[in-house]
Amino acid sequence: MFDKFNDECGVFGIYGHPEAANLTYLGLYALQHRGQESCGIVSSDGARLRAHKGMGLVADVFKQDSIFESLPGSNAIGHVRYSTAGGNDFKNCQPILVDYHRGSIAVAHNGNLVNAQEVRNDLERKGSIFSTVADTEVIMHLLARSECDSLTERVTMALNQVKGAYSLIFLTETRMLAVRDPNGFRPLVLGKLDGAYIVASETCALDLIEAQFIREIEPGEMILIDKTGLQSFRPFEQTQPSPCIFEHIYFARPDSTIFGQQVYQVRKDFGRQLAREHPVEADLVVPIPDSGVPAAIGYAEESGIPFQLGLIRNHYVGRTFIEPQQSIRHFGVKIKLNPVREIIEGKRVVVIDDSIVRGTTARKIIKMIRNAGAKEVHVRISCPPTSYPCFYGIDTPTRKELISSSHTVEEINRYITSDTLGYLSLEGMHAAAGAPIIDGRKGYCDACFSGSYPVRFPRLKDDSQLGLF
Amino acid sequence: MFDKFNDECGVFGIYGHPEAANLTYLGLYALQHRGQESCGIVSSDGARLRAHKGMGLVADVFKQDSIFESLPGSNAIGHVRYSTAGGNDFKNCQPILVDYHRGSIAVAHNGNLVNAQEVRNDLERKGSIFSTVADTEVIMHLLARSECDSLTERVTMALNQVKGAYSLIFLTETRMLAVRDPNGFRPLVLGKLDGAYIVASETCALDLIEAQFIREIEPGEMILIDKTGLQSFRPFEQTQPSPCIFEHIYFARPDSTIFGQQVYQVRKDFGRQLAREHPVEADLVVPIPDSGVPAAIGYAEESGIPFQLGLIRNHYVGRTFIEPQQSIRHFGVKIKLNPVREIIEGKRVVVIDDSIVRGTTARKIIKMIRNAGAKEVHVRISCPPTSYPCFYGIDTPTRKELISSSHTVEEINRYITSDTLGYLSLEGMHAAAGAPIIDGRKGYCDACFSGSYPVRFPRLKDDSQLGLF
Amino acid sequence: MFDKFNDECGVFGIYGHPEAANLTYLGLYALQHRGQESCGIVSSDGARLRAHKGMGLVADVFKQDSIFESLPGSNAIGHVRYSTAGGNDFKNCQPILVDYHRGSIAVAHNGNLVNAQEVRNDLERKGSIFSTVADTEVIMHLLARSECDSLTERVTMALNQVKGAYSLIFLTETRMLAVRDPNGFRPLVLGKLDGAYIVASETCALDLIEAQFIREIEPGEMILIDKTGLQSFRPFEQTQPSPCIFEHIYFARPDSTIFGQQVYQVRKDFGRQLAREHPVEADLVVPIPDSGVPAAIGYAEESGIPFQLGLIRNHYVGRTFIEPQQSIRHFGVKIKLNPVREIIEGKRVVVIDDSIVRGTTARKIIKMIRNAGAKEVHVRISCPPTSYPCFYGIDTPTRKELISSSHTVEEINRYITSDTLGYLSLEGMHAAAGAPIIDGRKGYCDACFSGSYPVRFPRLKDDSQLGLF
Amino acid sequence: MFDKFNDECGVFGIYGHPEAANLTYLGLYALQHRGQESCGIVSSDGARLRAHKGMGLVADVFKQDSIFESLPGSNAIGHVRYSTAGGNDFKNCQPILVDYHRGSIAVAHNGNLVNAQEVRNDLERKGSIFSTVADTEVIMHLLARSECDSLTERVTMALNQVKGAYSLIFLTETRMLAVRDPNGFRPLVLGKLDGAYIVASETCALDLIEAQFIREIEPGEMILIDKTGLQSFRPFEQTQPSPCIFEHIYFARPDSTIFGQQVYQVRKDFGRQLAREHPVEADLVVPIPDSGVPAAIGYAEESGIPFQLGLIRNHYVGRTFIEPQQSIRHFGVKIKLNPVREIIEGKRVVVIDDSIVRGTTARKIIKMIRNAGAKEVHVRISCPPTSYPCFYGIDTPTRKELISSSHTVEEINRYITSDTLGYLSLEGMHAAAGAPIIDGRKGYCDACFSGSYPVRFPRLKDDSQLGLF
Repeated sequence: MFDKFNDECGVFGIYGHPEAANLTYLGLYALQHRGQESCGIVSSDGARLRAHKGMGLVADVFKQDSIFESLPGSNAIGHVRYSTAGGNDFKNCQPILVDYHRGSIAVAHNGNLVNAQEVRNDLERKGSIFSTVADTEVIMHLLARSECDSLTERVTMALNQVKGAYSLIFLTETRMLAVRDPNGFRPLVLGKLDGAYIVASETCALDLIEAQFIREIEPGEMILIDKTGLQSFRPFEQTQPSPCIFEHIYFARPDSTIFGQQVYQVRKDFGRQLAREHPVEADLVVPIPDSGVPAAIGYAEESGIPFQLGLIRNHYVGRTFIEPQQSIRHFGVKIKLNPVREIIEGKRVVVIDDSIVRGTTARKIIKMIRNAGAKEVHVRISCPPTSYPCFYGIDTPTRKELISSSHTVEEINRYITSDTLGYLSLEGMHAAAGAPIIDGRKGYCDACFSGSYPVRFPRLKDDSQLGLF
Repeated sequence: MFDKFNDECGVFGIYGHPEAANLTYLGLYALQHRGQESCGIVSSDGARLRAHKGMGLVADVFKQDSIFESLPGSNAIGHVRYSTAGGNDFKNCQPILVDYHRGSIAVAHNGNLVNAQEVRNDLERKGSIFSTVADTEVIMHLLARSECDSLTERVTMALNQVKGAYSLIFLTETRMLAVRDPNGFRPLVLGKLDGAYIVASETCALDLIEAQFIREIEPGEMILIDKTGLQSFRPFEQTQPSPCIFEHIYFARPDSTIFGQQVYQVRKDFGRQLAREHPVEADLVVPIPDSGVPAAIGYAEESGIPFQLGLIRNHYVGRTFIEPQQSIRHFGVKIKLNPVREIIEGKRVVVIDDSIVRGTTARKIIKMIRNAGAKEVHVRISCPPTSYPCFYGIDTPTRKELISSSHTVEEINRYITSDTLGYLSLEGMHAAAGAPIIDGRKGYCDACFSGSYPVRFPRLKDDSQLGLF
Repeated sequence: MFDKFNDECGVFGIYGHPEAANLTYLGLYALQHRGQESCGIVSSDGARLRAHKGMGLVADVFKQDSIFESLPGSNAIGHVRYSTAGGNDFKNCQPILVDYHRGSIAVAHNGNLVNAQEVRNDLERKGSIFSTVADTEVIMHLLARSECDSLTERVTMALNQVKGAYSLIFLTETRMLAVRDPNGFRPLVLGKLDGAYIVASETCALDLIEAQFIREIEPGEMILIDKTGLQSFRPFEQTQPSPCIFEHIYFARPDSTIFGQQVYQVRKDFGRQLAREHPVEADLVVPIPDSGVPAAIGYAEESGIPFQLGLIRNHYVGRTFIEPQQSIRHFGVKIKLNPVREIIEGKRVVVIDDSIVRGTTARKIIKMIRNAGAKEVHVRISCPPTSYPCFYGIDTPTRKELISSSHTVEEINRYITSDTLGYLSLEGMHAAAGAPIIDGRKGYCDACFSGSYPVRFPRLKDDSQLGLF
Repeated sequence: MFDKFNDECGVFGIYGHPEAANLTYLGLYALQHRGQESCGIVSSDGARLRAHKGMGLVADVFKQDSIFESLPGSNAIGHVRYSTAGGNDFKNCQPILVDYHRGSIAVAHNGNLVNAQEVRNDLERKGSIFSTVADTEVIMHLLARSECDSLTERVTMALNQVKGAYSLIFLTETRMLAVRDPNGFRPLVLGKLDGAYIVASETCALDLIEAQFIREIEPGEMILIDKTGLQSFRPFEQTQPSPCIFEHIYFARPDSTIFGQQVYQVRKDFGRQLAREHPVEADLVVPIPDSGVPAAIGYAEESGIPFQLGLIRNHYVGRTFIEPQQSIRHFGVKIKLNPVREIIEGKRVVVIDDSIVRGTTARKIIKMIRNAGAKEVHVRISCPPTSYPCFYGIDTPTRKELISSSHTVEEINRYITSDTLGYLSLEGMHAAAGAPIIDGRKGYCDACFSGSYPVRFPRLKDDSQLGLF
């Protein structure tokens, strides 16, 4: 995308494999695109849970082989976490591991609770103490306060008190439990390898370890895995599912299958629809690599305009790159992208990406493309303008930063200096994504485009508390 | 000492100084001998608490100047922690910082609660979750569950439910509160600098920052410091104080004043008394550096035998030294100490230290001294044989490791191959330490020598749970 | 490519810019693809040369801003170096900086001398000592032994004694000097920014810092830059230029212009020619990302078969990833690539890459594609079979490792289990690359395909000394 | 000492032991006090030399066990190096390892050549290039330029061209060679362990690995060790030996025997002589720990005034400690030392150390002692005022920094605010050190006190080039 949304989180769990921690490491590695700030693994050897967590990428936090020796056992869960502002955030790393009256329990969480603060206030009034700022800690308190005898009942009782988005994997000394919220905002899939069950955010994690993809865990489904095998429960009141369409637009990896469809194909279809909605006479279609590639291929196929990789990405761009401070100039996007002059020179170019955030990056890229000799630059975005905050687990930029929340498409077009600018329509997006429209409610949550939120949340006086818009 | 007890902890707090975090860093640095495994600082700017913690020495964890910028405010507390077995122990670093219904609160704890497990079990039954294995977390739960209106009442209510040793410093957004348990096991002193109040484990922390030593915080005293100044409370039932004599023998720094006396002087007096109890015809008195030096000077003065630094310490021995694994020989104590042959050759040597743990190190040192040509080696220990576990905050070796728990002095003498061996007597120790004997109860806790425990603790079936003997 | 050749080196220099070290850092960053093992910068402030070098990526070695403060001056040169086996290789980092009778001089070298060992033996016989294993040190010795008065003469005299490939940038206290060997094996371009001259391996380094591309430095040309401006010399006997065609096939960045052509366009033309030489009935063209993309686009355009990104690369694969040692399975290429099942399933797939080294990776990828449901897999390689070692600066795999040195195309096809396999022909490659054929000698060096070496080298008895095939 | 001279270097070599690199590591560890900035080991397996070097302490540079696997062979030499100003100094780490016409050779050097710059200029004029700023590189060039057939002749020829101080250990593929300059400025001792020969700067390195001390290597002696055993040569013109008395005063470890005497004993004798020369009525003798302890014991014994450890050192002071930058106050020596008030209060104190450099630290310590209640403070220094630079291997402070080069004893006394100040006399020092006075030439080099230099050096116009006074 022209700018970058902060990523969210990824979860992985495996039950009953002699190499549980190793495979969790590999699974997290495949899910690294869902969170680069911190990661962690908790393993169980049937009697005791052990954790290793740290700030940084999976390959860095788990660099030493001795770490795996400190994570014995045939069951393990892991977590990768999105980046946030602020420094020493170690305490917020997941999985969270606590002791309570039934023993030890760990949890890895992808999603966001809309009533976390309310429940937290209530728990604090009852004498609870909180060590982290994560929603997830609320769930652990509720679970510990439950007096139900079975783990599934305790988890159900806890989750009945929270609202929002959660794909959760719990691990106890002897069991693994996976739950997806009734709306099914975040993906969660089930797989199998050598007789061991696996739960992961996306199928790409199964692919890497050569596990078999069984099926998705359904919205509102709870899966309990123990020595006797797998049981499925439906403990929550049923509701209309509303998986997050932004997973298809940007977050998920293109080789994953989520919500019943392969992401690459959905993105290509967005591009095809975009070509139908916003055709233009042009000489070539160029994606912003790598996120814009599938939509650009779709656009090129539908329009018949040739696809070219006219912008080259520097592969060594990572979080460590720092522009020298004393420099008088700022290179910004040039550090990442460079146009191929011979391809672009004298041509009418369609540039495809999946969003415009501030508009400043788009403006720079268009200038760069014009400097490389383009005659015309037409920008096409493979989703509608993003104008509303997400309360379900995506750390969207604040409203102030989001150009489409305060400007019309025409104003944005002028600001970024494109010749023409076209966004995919809400209807076109739903049509391309292919989810059925039931009773006037579309299958996907599109709140960030439409402002129509499937799960209500408390109206806080101070919007900034939401840390979103 | 011949072997090393694991150290315990050190605490520091300052209220009302523009350089609170800086000065806490320096204070912890002066208290580094009380704990080398981890350390941390929590600061308050009047509205919000911020923490930085890490595994390692103070100078390493707080290496970058930017850390201090992330700890603004004029109030701060800090903690250094003893080393334990086991790897990724980050979660147990202190100060512990939590949110509860009254806001945020942090605590730094030196000591050990004897009923922590019982209270923890009870709290878990009521639905509490625990993130650490520290006793201290118990106190935070109790405090959060209190419905008293004032901070002092909440802390009092919490501490009335625990038993054992605690020198605690709490920090809230606007207040600092220091408490010493009624027995006064661990030291805690009060100082002042530029109008700011300081609380610290030992006076050496005040000396470094050039603060004035006001007085010790009394056993059972609670001190509340806020914008209006300092208030003192006596919220607990009074009891006979029993400060830990091992602080004088080994833990505290010789330049500190604790329990009303300067440690160096007490150690010298132990050495003088030892010379009276166990005189010997010899040519020189040699300390095990650095811990045995003051007692050796005392022994030399009383006996008239010349003091010599006949064993030289390698200053570069630190936690990072690792003997090459493939090595066929083990160097052990030689890495740390080397005898000065010309001093020792042909001489009758009195070797002074403050304890014998396993006896293996003593045996090696005596062999080393004999190899350097000593004619006779007489070992004198500046305290009685250590035969009982400590439940009040000192992480003593297990009973199996402690040679004096299963062997007579004569057996130990034979094992370590000394010509003669003498321990300071219990009575001599108390006499030298100079604390008054009231109603048959000696002023100091000497449980590790006498087995006479001033605070009762639950008889657990499995001794190993105590992690001590 | 299916496997990875070790990269070679990249060089950068700038003369007369107040931010010389900063801009060199950025230039090296843009050239990072030419060498990932080590890097370094030497700056000059007119009086003194200063160096900073280290093992690792540019962004890591130059992480701290203070490094740039230690590299003052308006002139600087830099180097990125290819990876080699072996550990503590710090001493081989470039630029090499030495003192000699005329002052100090530093050099950054891309290329390989074919008579380095002979010259080194001769120098050692004359009493020289060598601190590194780099060819480059030989040049420094020859230069220091020259008694010529001018720098250009000294460098000319030194280079007249060596044979092979070199694109060199020298820096003295007051001058910068760039040379390209008479064959012009390696690229070297000249640019300008704010009045400062820049020399770099590829134009992408100019693009990043927004410098203007002036022209390529010609084969056999020497450029001297000092306060008075730029002078060009032709000090060597002229010969038929033979730039390395592998730069176009693999090494250079697609957005660079080298040897008079934009790399992306040349690669696309290879793909087009490949489609003409090896057509096949198929449903889609899939590149091995990212190296195969331009050729695949060319193949798709020429053949009319749709282009799809059917294999997705994990962006977080870096040098730090280590497969857990105790793992019973090896994941190899799956760590890097994953097929998009829905795209591939039931389809006849043309897979495009730029080389096959051992064949093992190709075999695994084909298996992976078949497992994703492909009906047929046709492999097309955008160059001829690589059968001969390179002696001019590319660290090719050894002959034993190179499957095409001992197997026919049909044997390779069977081994990698493709349905059909086609390599671009030598003639087709030259035709597509578009360089003129002069007097029967093709414009490009194609020795690694043809065995026809433009510069003779000593026949060493032990081939392994060459460290190549 | 009140301030710290920069340390110099230490060398170690072992020939014919299966654990050569391991034992060299331990030997360097014992010599760490001679150099803390960098260290390195070169090993030989009979065919090839391999090196590992790095900036930092021995325990840090050789932290990983795998390093020892990369240093195979039964012969090894090592080096620890003093600290210098300036950053990335890796290239100056020793041992220096080079290739030349006879193969490979490495060298570890303790000392300083007085004509290094002259010889270097001459070598540069002949075409040599220099990669380091170390004197030692000069020796390698001279050795490589020698056409003598035997190693001993080549080394002799090289060393006949240099003047100054050198204790050198060379290592080739099959031999080890140790040399001490004719004046014998720096110590060098010979030992044996399990049949293997060992050469080291001080005997404390032999003690640690439990090797037997055979004898010192004599001034002007060259020792060649190979498979056939050990041979001794006297290849240089004989001269009056002049070992460095500062080794006894400060540099060597007190448990070492060098120049025929145990350092501890010599230091005590300095203290005794000091008591005779500068008696004072006082209550206690306090050393600056740890360097002043033996002299203080000697002073106490001779004077009858009790010895007390009245200043306590913080053991955790290391190179990593950094005072917070934004701090408004500077703690300086308080970070390292703290007085024991009860010992000092109301007393007349004699403070013993081995030198005064700038005087600022002495002034602070005296203030600290007075603040602790001392009635009088008498300073006694266990050597004469240091007024001249050392050209033989000790990196003394510059003349500007050295208070005694421009102030009388009485002026220094006033500046540091002591009640009285006494330095050991030159004659007293020699008498106490016990070396014979032959023909009016004292046995020890005392140039830093007397300005009488035993080896002449070129008069450079610019004194600052010497980097000394």
